[in-house]
Amino acid sequence: MSKFIRSDFYPKNFKLFSDNIENLLGNLIIKNNINKKFEILEISSLEEIRDHSILFVNNSEFKIDHLKEDLIIFTDKPDFFDNNEKMQIVLINDYNKCFNLLINHLYLHEDSINYFDDFTFKDNSYISKFSFVDDSTKIGKNCFIGRGVKIGKNTIIKNNVIIKNTLIGDNVIIGDNSTIGSSGFGFDLKNMGTKNLYPHVGIVYISNNVCIGSNCTFDRGKIDCTYIGENSMIDNLVHLAHNVHIGSNACIAAQSGFAGSVVVGDNLICGGQSAFNGHIKIGNNVTVAGKSGVTKNIGDNSIVAGFPATDINKWKRSTILNRKKNA
Amino acid sequence: MSKFIRSDFYPKNFKLFSDNIENLLGNLIIKNNINKKFEILEISSLEEIRDHSILFVNNSEFKIDHLKEDLIIFTDKPDFFDNNEKMQIVLINDYNKCFNLLINHLYLHEDSINYFDDFTFKDNSYISKFSFVDDSTKIGKNCFIGRGVKIGKNTIIKNNVIIKNTLIGDNVIIGDNSTIGSSGFGFDLKNMGTKNLYPHVGIVYISNNVCIGSNCTFDRGKIDCTYIGENSMIDNLVHLAHNVHIGSNACIAAQSGFAGSVVVGDNLICGGQSAFNGHIKIGNNVTVAGKSGVTKNIGDNSIVAGFPATDINKWKRSTILNRKKNA
Amino acid sequence: MSKFIRSDFYPKNFKLFSDNIENLLGNLIIKNNINKKFEILEISSLEEIRDHSILFVNNSEFKIDHLKEDLIIFTDKPDFFDNNEKMQIVLINDYNKCFNLLINHLYLHEDSINYFDDFTFKDNSYISKFSFVDDSTKIGKNCFIGRGVKIGKNTIIKNNVIIKNTLIGDNVIIGDNSTIGSSGFGFDLKNMGTKNLYPHVGIVYISNNVCIGSNCTFDRGKIDCTYIGENSMIDNLVHLAHNVHIGSNACIAAQSGFAGSVVVGDNLICGGQSAFNGHIKIGNNVTVAGKSGVTKNIGDNSIVAGFPATDINKWKRSTILNRKKNA
Repeated sequence: MSKFIRSDFYPKNFKLFSDNIENLLGNLIIKNNINKKFEILEISSLEEIRDHSILFVNNSEFKIDHLKEDLIIFTDKPDFFDNNEKMQIVLINDYNKCFNLLINHLYLHEDSINYFDDFTFKDNSYISKFSFVDDSTKIGKNCFIGRGVKIGKNTIIKNNVIIKNTLIGDNVIIGDNSTIGSSGFGFDLKNMGTKNLYPHVGIVYISNNVCIGSNCTFDRGKIDCTYIGENSMIDNLVHLAHNVHIGSNACIAAQSGFAGSVVVGDNLICGGQSAFNGHIKIGNNVTVAGKSGVTKNIGDNSIVAGFPATDINKWKRSTILNRKKNA
Repeated sequence: MSKFIRSDFYPKNFKLFSDNIENLLGNLIIKNNINKKFEILEISSLEEIRDHSILFVNNSEFKIDHLKEDLIIFTDKPDFFDNNEKMQIVLINDYNKCFNLLINHLYLHEDSINYFDDFTFKDNSYISKFSFVDDSTKIGKNCFIGRGVKIGKNTIIKNNVIIKNTLIGDNVIIGDNSTIGSSGFGFDLKNMGTKNLYPHVGIVYISNNVCIGSNCTFDRGKIDCTYIGENSMIDNLVHLAHNVHIGSNACIAAQSGFAGSVVVGDNLICGGQSAFNGHIKIGNNVTVAGKSGVTKNIGDNSIVAGFPATDINKWKRSTILNRKKNA
Repeated sequence: MSKFIRSDFYPKNFKLFSDNIENLLGNLIIKNNINKKFEILEISSLEEIRDHSILFVNNSEFKIDHLKEDLIIFTDKPDFFDNNEKMQIVLINDYNKCFNLLINHLYLHEDSINYFDDFTFKDNSYISKFSFVDDSTKIGKNCFIGRGVKIGKNTIIKNNVIIKNTLIGDNVIIGDNSTIGSSGFGFDLKNMGTKNLYPHVGIVYISNNVCIGSNCTFDRGKIDCTYIGENSMIDNLVHLAHNVHIGSNACIAAQSGFAGSVVVGDNLICGGQSAFNGHIKIGNNVTVAGKSGVTKNIGDNSIVAGFPATDINKWKRSTILNRKKNA
């Protein structure tokens, strides 16, 4: 459902062949088991492995089920390397540096903005000639619609909206002053500064009938998608970090924030000013009371509140008892 | 004080006559007591009843004090219907669906944006020819001033500001990248998606000498006004949902959020990142400490803190005792 | 490091001489010890005293170490006046009113926007002819770069970004829809409304390699700088109030807010939706967990969580014990 063609959004930078990797990474390589020559055309994630691609694995437990054609794996885990030594695999000693070097070699992503783009200028909005906007869709004033963006039927993009690296379905509404598809907050705490930003080369995928409020920020995925399911309703000033996955029929009130890689099932109801820790999983039919801080996975059909968020009845009881005791 | 002429902001869609309602709502009608023919020109709310209008009542306790001329009431409460059976009243079985059908028949509101508008283009800002901006008022670059908007004397609208469906007094300042008067977050949780949005057809009313920061979002009222009283000072990234009413001399620090229909008296002092539950009433001279979550009505002259917000001295005592006990 | 020439950003309004002060302030003056005639060219703060300037002191304990040439001190503290009676010093009876009168006499700051500016218009962005942008720097669409702004090498300003009263280093990235250098939230709670705003005449200083997300708001300093140190990484929807000082290598996650005059050391790690009370000091190497409310000074090398923020282990223990007791 959320497949996309990466090269629609930004051009390749340099060609990369499997036998050129030794050259590029130099002494960052500890052991190199690549023994086949082919061109690398894509990048994979642990969630989605693509043909002719490179994959970075820093989790020794990871299992590769479906062997893809021409996949090169980079890992900094010696045991993972040893367990997969018959694959095209490279043991490296600086995971993040290797990631940055290879991705920046392959792609001209947004924050490099050295790539060529060409725009149609209409109603004071810039619409990339490499984008597609259905004729029935309306775009307001002072907008920016970047390269590769596709927008379906009867969608409304209000004013001063920035849309980059994004696929948008039918009947979507995006509120004024929102920023969709900009690069997310990804870097190594040991190497700060703009020169050490992880290249984020994924996209945002917005399904049919989604409604997004004003002044929201939805960051593109790191490699895959930041995803919002059908019929989801998102209020003003909401932040979705990179790789967040929101299911269908979500209702997310204003000023809530989802840290990177949060995965939420269908039918979420989320009160305002709630926050979600990175990399947690929220089940289906979950209700999160306003101003909650969700720090852990939440099972299906739960209702939680407070910080750290817990069962709403426990939270209420605890709050009442505390006040009585301390009154 | 906050009266407005709805048709200044967007045109009528279709004419609606009282004897045409049966036709429009079909089998959503259970009982129909309309026995007079007249044209429906307006929509009423429980707070303000207008002549020649339709009114939706889902609260059986509601009393209609001032009988307006040519008012048609729609209700899904059989007892309310029975108690008011001598009025022009209709008993319906899908309150929200009837509301949406009738309002979308009557009005072309913002999110339909099918209506005609025509702009003056100055300093890269679009200013509707159906708006009024006093000559002494300054408008920055890349702004959008929509149809029906009126702006008084010596007001400053900074850059990239969106103003729609709004009346603004004298000596107001509105900060960069703010969105004022866009449609709010209104829908039925049982029917999600953009096609089921409640039509919001009210406005924002900003009184004299109000100061609004950068990147704020103030949503228009559902039927009446979202209102900000004189001399109120509002910081950056503040969210006011639809129908919020803030009294005079409010001081609201950054990143605070007010859910729909909160009513606040005069002289509010509100610390940053505070949140207010929908539909609560806050008295006069109330102070809310930063990062509070206000869940219930607050009386005059109160000082509250914490989440759920309580008397600030109780909150401090409770916080200190808790830490001692658990140290 | 963060020196700046105030008159680069906005012109003087009227000349001010030391012997003209009696005239301007009238009966707001209680005692006047000025006995020398000179022109006042600048304004000082308690943190930085400048030559030929006026300084406002409302803290009786304040010591003036380095006597600057031609400094006039205004104070509402009789004991401070008595202790410094040999200086050019004035005892006043309405501190804020005197501040506003004198600054508004001296400067045409942003919110008066009566000063002349002239722009280059490129890619639909306004770039002041009184600004400097290095040729290697890229500026997106629909931006506003105000008078006096200087931007170094290889910086990326994305789209719909407002930059005023700001100095920016090399290799900086500023995200879409952000507002940098607008006037902050400063006024006397006893005199509200836009006519009583404190004039904010400082700037924002952004060091090399800083990365700033989308839809952020960084307010200019009141008299000196709002400052962000080298290599700092700031996520989306973050608010920095006037006079905030963030050291080098900070990592600040989305939707966090810093109230006025917070001073933070180097190497801050701050989770999302955190808040900092005004005027507090945070040491070096401090970690603040997400959704914390920091109300007091924090020493070096601390890890804090909760609201009010406390040692993270105490917070965890307290949270667990509370839940057990109330289970």
